[in-house]
Amino acid sequence: MSVSLSCHRCETRYDDDTRVRCDCGEPLWIDAETTSFAWDDCGNRSGMWRYEAALPIDRPDGVARAAGGTPLVRSPGLDDVAGGRVFIKDEGENPTGSYKDRGSAVAVPRTIAAGDDVVGTVSYGNMAISTAAHATSLDRECIVFVPEDISPVRLELIAQYEPTVVRVGGEYGALYEDALELSDRLPITALVSDDPARISGYKTALFEICESFAPETPDVIALPASSGGFASGVWLGIRELERAGLIDEPPRLCLVQTAASDPITRAFEDGSTDPTPMSSDETGETIARSIGNPDPPSGARALSAVRDTDGAVVSVTDDEIRAAQRRFAVEGGFCVEPASATTLAGVSRLADRGEISAAESIVLVPTGTGFKELGTGETDVATETVHRTDLADRLESLLPPRGE
Amino acid sequence: MSVSLSCHRCETRYDDDTRVRCDCGEPLWIDAETTSFAWDDCGNRSGMWRYEAALPIDRPDGVARAAGGTPLVRSPGLDDVAGGRVFIKDEGENPTGSYKDRGSAVAVPRTIAAGDDVVGTVSYGNMAISTAAHATSLDRECIVFVPEDISPVRLELIAQYEPTVVRVGGEYGALYEDALELSDRLPITALVSDDPARISGYKTALFEICESFAPETPDVIALPASSGGFASGVWLGIRELERAGLIDEPPRLCLVQTAASDPITRAFEDGSTDPTPMSSDETGETIARSIGNPDPPSGARALSAVRDTDGAVVSVTDDEIRAAQRRFAVEGGFCVEPASATTLAGVSRLADRGEISAAESIVLVPTGTGFKELGTGETDVATETVHRTDLADRLESLLPPRGE
Ligand SMILES: [Zn+2]
Ligand SMILES: [Zn+2]
Repeated sequence: MSVSLSCHRCETRYDDDTRVRCDCGEPLWIDAETTSFAWDDCGNRSGMWRYEAALPIDRPDGVARAAGGTPLVRSPGLDDVAGGRVFIKDEGENPTGSYKDRGSAVAVPRTIAAGDDVVGTVSYGNMAISTAAHATSLDRECIVFVPEDISPVRLELIAQYEPTVVRVGGEYGALYEDALELSDRLPITALVSDDPARISGYKTALFEICESFAPETPDVIALPASSGGFASGVWLGIRELERAGLIDEPPRLCLVQTAASDPITRAFEDGSTDPTPMSSDETGETIARSIGNPDPPSGARALSAVRDTDGAVVSVTDDEIRAAQRRFAVEGGFCVEPASATTLAGVSRLADRGEISAAESIVLVPTGTGFKELGTGETDVATETVHRTDLADRLESLLPPRGE
Repeated sequence: MSVSLSCHRCETRYDDDTRVRCDCGEPLWIDAETTSFAWDDCGNRSGMWRYEAALPIDRPDGVARAAGGTPLVRSPGLDDVAGGRVFIKDEGENPTGSYKDRGSAVAVPRTIAAGDDVVGTVSYGNMAISTAAHATSLDRECIVFVPEDISPVRLELIAQYEPTVVRVGGEYGALYEDALELSDRLPITALVSDDPARISGYKTALFEICESFAPETPDVIALPASSGGFASGVWLGIRELERAGLIDEPPRLCLVQTAASDPITRAFEDGSTDPTPMSSDETGETIARSIGNPDPPSGARALSAVRDTDGAVVSVTDDEIRAAQRRFAVEGGFCVEPASATTLAGVSRLADRGEISAAESIVLVPTGTGFKELGTGETDVATETVHRTDLADRLESLLPPRGE
């Protein structure tokens, strides 16, 4: 594909493919000028590389080859809560357990091809884990900038891939801008949440969903929203498929935020085009640790995605998230992280408002596995103890009589 | 496919499809009498259901639909340790993070179809997690029998799916036989490690590997071995593909055990057809918690698989496992559990003995993700702290000059 960068807002195009932001301030994306693209042309490459022709790099080596190709499963047990026909697109089944691998699979090799020896990232969660894994599998140095007070658990998950970990003192939120500035000046590219190549990788999740439904289109796609990067990628995918004539009516994009930090929801409700950054006084703690960006760099683009597709943005509380996480496990059989469980909680709110109807198909996208955050041993679990020799008797009382 | 059960050893066939063991004592498997099977016939169903025609049930609902279809990735960074050309088949990318999902996807629905309301399992690890997830996604009760002293971490991973958890006092190892006996008498089917339907599910991992290589065949496939169930499934797959004319020379099956409990290795070295159960005095602790069965019910079948394919069985120490786990992460970008890291350590031993040559293709099968066992915060991680305002200066000294 021909690679140039463009702005979703002012439509300016740039041929300098190292740019990440428009003169107007908005993040750029790699928007294919022409998309002559059909499902039948995709060949039989595995994972996200099935859509290689629509991506800005050729299929790379390394763990990137394992990214994408995640399953989509109908989960009728969640229909009553969601208010429609639920499908789960389980992004936890990526090599490092989150959708971030789709972005890293494009962005890390592209950075290396551009000549930088060192890949950086500003994250202490899934993006750090993913970036470090992809860099090391291509034998490249990675520097991860984490907050000074990162938890030992998070640190261990990142450190297994042996990047250089730098704890940064001072205001961690300001590092997004610092990283872009350092990437300009020094021989490192810091792959932030809305790096244009990352966004390209994310669109493959939308391609997979739409190809699974083809020739139909799902009615609603629900995603957690933090930086707005994933929503941007999904919207980019929708635009490209519309242009290629592969979908008529776009799915409604529903973004869900944690009520603890929800600038995109606030802007959506206010009718604003741009989220207002939230101060530390306005934000709170949440169990949805992977989301909750108080100053989302792709927030305006995420809002445009929602409005363009006639979707919605909602916020949910930790209690709603906990209940939804339980439903994912108990009805669906899927272990999702709290940030991912927001999707079900959010859709449930929309259904309560009458914005979803029972016949509609709803794709929930749990973006990350719950296995990274589970197993603390802190949950109370009800059990009984039975001696082996008493087991038959005890089971007879537990079980229904055979044949009834 | 026509379903009857047969014995790998004495070749007796049984039409009673609820049997699990032969009169000769060996576990039975579902051995398709005829396999007219070609890759081109497989259609485009996702995951392991691509091979529905070779499985004993029709594709079920629930999380089963997300099982299998895991990526196979060439990982040249591991070649020097392994002594050949390494490919990783990442079974951690299953819905509950292990290959057990392939078995549960067949065995749980088959049990339900047979009329039992309750599914049981004897496990406190990946099999318990997988069985509970698959049962609940089909709205069925699950009873998990765990040891009395199960760790709170393990318990939490299982309990998220809300099975009935019964801690069993007395000798946990004896529960395998107890469970089969209870399954005969009571309206519960306890899906043990070598349940015939599980073994059928496991063969799909072999099908996927061979289809990826077709028309070539990999030279070596390395698996961790515990009960011998997975090795049995892979061998069953090899036999069916040979019969269908899809492979000529079978891959050499290499099984790897933890030195802390390695009855299959001992029997292989002794030339025995049956492993001798190891007593608790003979076995030790190991970081490879998912393996180490001292009395493997499919041990004899696993030995036959190895000998039939001209393979090998080796044992590795915890130090070798730790080193191999690090290599999976740092060279491959894959987070694998210690039990899975044995595959690299074992192949490395075989290479040292001259049993692998540099041009050979070696498929390592990490059977489970490391994310369930990582994140204890107990690992020492070297970091430095830099204030935001000093970051540029510090980076300049860390990074090579641009363009060199
Ligand atoms: Zn602009
Ligand atoms: Zn027999």
